[in-house]
Formats: sequence, structure tokens, C-alpha cells
Amino acid sequence: MRFCSHCGNPDLHFSIPEGDNRPRYWCDQCNTIHYQNPKIVVGAVPVWEGKVLLCKRDIEPRKGYWTLPAGFMENGETLQEGAIRETWEEACATVAIKDLYTVFNLPHINQVYVFFLGELVEGKYGVGEESSDAGLFALDEIPWDELAFPTIGRTLRFYIDDLKEDRFPVRCQDIAPLKRRPSED
Amino acid sequence: MRFCSHCGNPDLHFSIPEGDNRPRYWCDQCNTIHYQNPKIVVGAVPVWEGKVLLCKRDIEPRKGYWTLPAGFMENGETLQEGAIRETWEEACATVAIKDLYTVFNLPHINQVYVFFLGELVEGKYGVGEESSDAGLFALDEIPWDELAFPTIGRTLRFYIDDLKEDRFPVRCQDIAPLKRRPSED
Ligand SMILES: [Zn+2]
Ligand SMILES: [Zn+2]
Repeated sequence: MRFCSHCGNPDLHFSIPEGDNRPRYWCDQCNTIHYQNPKIVVGAVPVWEGKVLLCKRDIEPRKGYWTLPAGFMENGETLQEGAIRETWEEACATVAIKDLYTVFNLPHINQVYVFFLGELVEGKYGVGEESSDAGLFALDEIPWDELAFPTIGRTLRFYIDDLKEDRFPVRCQDIAPLKRRPSED
Repeated sequence: MRFCSHCGNPDLHFSIPEGDNRPRYWCDQCNTIHYQNPKIVVGAVPVWEGKVLLCKRDIEPRKGYWTLPAGFMENGETLQEGAIRETWEEACATVAIKDLYTVFNLPHINQVYVFFLGELVEGKYGVGEESSDAGLFALDEIPWDELAFPTIGRTLRFYIDDLKEDRFPVRCQDIAPLKRRPSED
């Protein structure tokens, strides 16, 4: 953020505004404080006949890796509507949303991930514009080493565990930054 | 949003960018798309000896009405850290966060509310800078007609119901815009 989006002032401050307790971008010409807050990534676990729908990402980050349908929640929608929209956009699939399932804090990238359990309607899917492939995976065929994000793997592992007891409690966890490999040190 | 916060261009477009499916503010000088996404409001249900900690708001909106400690989640923190911070800021109180409890969609104002159950440490509290009063309320003394937001009343009603069975499942609901009173028509 370099210019005030309200008045165009090129000399924004980045400091603690009066009465606040943390640094913000703020403008002394129009007195606007430009708050920046975490974003929500919302997605679904679309299940059909015991298999889970995954998509292969055709965009960065993590292009070529597999993901559950998920993406940034948009203004004007509910979490569930966001999960349905992302499933449609990434896998041309209609998902019937069931319960809230996983919630992950990723404070190092200012994101909160939220996944819902769902049923893939009629088992139909395709390959969305942001995907290069999509498929239904049996739970013993999940491509664990080719998953795009830690949130995806954790959600799938919880799902496999919870299936055994047929109980799907909401899980809320933190995810730390990925460690660099020793060779990168 | 009137000026590009990246390059200062005063002629932002508001239309559907190429490859997108909804209108955004975007800049044809620096090619930045200015995404706007829902914000998270996070709070706690701080309980001590069967009573719930409420704060009287000393700021708009809903100044003078009672609320559970809650506010906008900040970058760099987890949901739980946000609930702890808000409880400290609004009621000078330390809350030990327990389970995720309620999640509300408010798509008409682009917000998602998230409350956690918690225990008020040592029963101690005060009156924070954004509050004019604070107090521990027995569950038959909740000021139902003076609550600040629907999310507060629903969370408290769930809590009272769930106490009877000593089970506190996560609740996820939509909240519609408040209807105007007939006299305002
Ligand atoms: Zn300004
Ligand atoms: Zn620009």
C-alpha cells in the first residue's frame, strides 16, 4: 500500500494511529485508517460413494499439485456459498454442503481456512478453468506427496480417521510456516 | 475505493476483470486488481462460576448496548489469540480459550463472526477503553433487550440450551439483515 485509496495522497504513514495499539497505514490528509485483516479461504470435501473429489491446480501457487476445491471467500456470500462456488469453479461440480468440519489458523500468511463436509451431487464433475485435472480418489489412493497445502492433507487425514467412528467433530488447529529443507540453509 | 493504492491512479475501473467472474476495482496503469473480502469478527464467551462476562459498548455502532467481548481479527494472529486480545481490550480480563463454539455468516455486511467458549481466569475483569461498563451476568439475568448484535443473543441462547445437556456442539448459522420497524416504512 503506497497511495491513499480514498484521496490519492502518496505520503501514507505506517505507524500506530492515536487511540490504536498497532501500526496501520493511515492518511493525514483525509484521516482514513487503512485496516488490513485476515482473509478466509473456504472449501469443501466433496464425497461420492466413499471417494473424495480432488483437483489438480493449474495456477500458482502449487501448480500441478492436488487440492480440495477451495478459494478466497467473496463479499456477499456465506461460507457455505463460497464452498459451493469454489467446487463449481474448480471442478464443474455441484456439492451439497453438510457440516462445518475443519478450521485452520495460518497467522504467518494472514489466512483462516474453513472446510465443510459435502456430497458430490450425482457423482458428476469436470475440470474447471483453474485446474488441469480432477478425479475421485479412494481413501487409500490419496496422493499424499502431491497435495498442494498442509490444510488439505490435515483435512483428509481427519476425514479418514473420523470415518472409522462415523463421528465428524469440528477440528480447529494452527498451521505453522513450512520449514525450509536443510539444503536451503 | 477511488485511487489505486499501488500507483495512485485516480481512474480505477469497477468491472469484471478478464478471466474473472465478478466486478472488482482494478487499475489499468499498474494492472493491480483490488480484491475486497469478508472480515472476521472474533470473540469469547468468558464464563466464571456459571456467570457470563458482558461489556457495555462505549463506541458506535450500538453504543450503550451489551456485548460479549469481540472485534475484528487482526493480521498475524490466530482466531483464539484474537478472542483473547478482544477480551483483554474490552474487559481488561484474561480468558482461557476452550472450544470453537459459534460461526455466523452475515453476508449483507461481509462479515463472519466466530465465538469460542472460555473461562474467565480468576474471575477478574475491569472496564476496557471501548466499554463504559462490564459485569458478570447470571444466565437468568441476561439483558436480552439490550444486547448489541444478533450474534451475541444467539450465542448466549445456544449456551444456555447446551448447558442443560452439557454438550456444546459447534453451531454454524446465517444471520439475515435486521428488518426495519414498520414505523420506518
Ligand atoms: Zn487520504
Ligand atoms: Zn495502479
